[in-house]
Amino acid sequence: MKPTHIEHIGIAVKSLDEAIPFYENVFGLKCYAVEEVAEQKVKTAFFMVGQTKIELLESTDPEGPIGKFIEKKGEGIHHLAFAVENLQEGLNETAEKGVKLIDQSPRKGAEGLNIAFLHPKSTFGVLTELCEHPEE
Amino acid sequence: MKPTHIEHIGIAVKSLDEAIPFYENVFGLKCYAVEEVAEQKVKTAFFMVGQTKIELLESTDPEGPIGKFIEKKGEGIHHLAFAVENLQEGLNETAEKGVKLIDQSPRKGAEGLNIAFLHPKSTFGVLTELCEHPEE
Repeated sequence: MKPTHIEHIGIAVKSLDEAIPFYENVFGLKCYAVEEVAEQKVKTAFFMVGQTKIELLESTDPEGPIGKFIEKKGEGIHHLAFAVENLQEGLNETAEKGVKLIDQSPRKGAEGLNIAFLHPKSTFGVLTELCEHPEE
Repeated sequence: MKPTHIEHIGIAVKSLDEAIPFYENVFGLKCYAVEEVAEQKVKTAFFMVGQTKIELLESTDPEGPIGKFIEKKGEGIHHLAFAVENLQEGLNETAEKGVKLIDQSPRKGAEGLNIAFLHPKSTFGVLTELCEHPEE
């Protein structure tokens, strides 16, 4: 497995209504999509910076993963997502190398991507996501 | 100011000797440089993923910024760096918009880049760096 680029950086925020204008006004980035991912109990907002998306994550439920993250650590960078070309193969290889997986097989994430998370205990503290475009 | 891409993602690790082989073996990335930044009390290791660098940061002093970060929060993503074309202008604009700066003017960072940090209290918890290539 060799990632082609950083697909996105997930950032936990308390309020999209406050964070979106900040990214637009201060960094001059355009929020091109807002999407709710009900399964993950989040509302997401996307900005493109070169090859990479900034994905702002607002919790829709204090018991969801982002709600708990903010309660424990405050707002900030939540995860790092690498784009790969064959996700299932990448997961198999990663597991064979002794990395603990959160998702054993791909599931659907925001923007219709196939995604899977690796466990931060196996990745030096970085909650790491692998993603592929479904057509690849 | 509009960043052109994500220049790098800074990740605090306890040991480059452990983390470099992980990024090389699991992600198939090549560590192309290791550099000590004495002023910041860190040793850094760089990997390229598309347009973006992964910058692993090992503290050379428990009292340095990375040493303190790891003591408080553990290993993990430390900062996010945007590439901009005119750093001083970007800093001026950012300050005018009410963002608190850590560095009022550019200083030298790893790889000879001109860099400056924004304060995470002004940036929704994300320690944000702006960088420019000195020739730009």
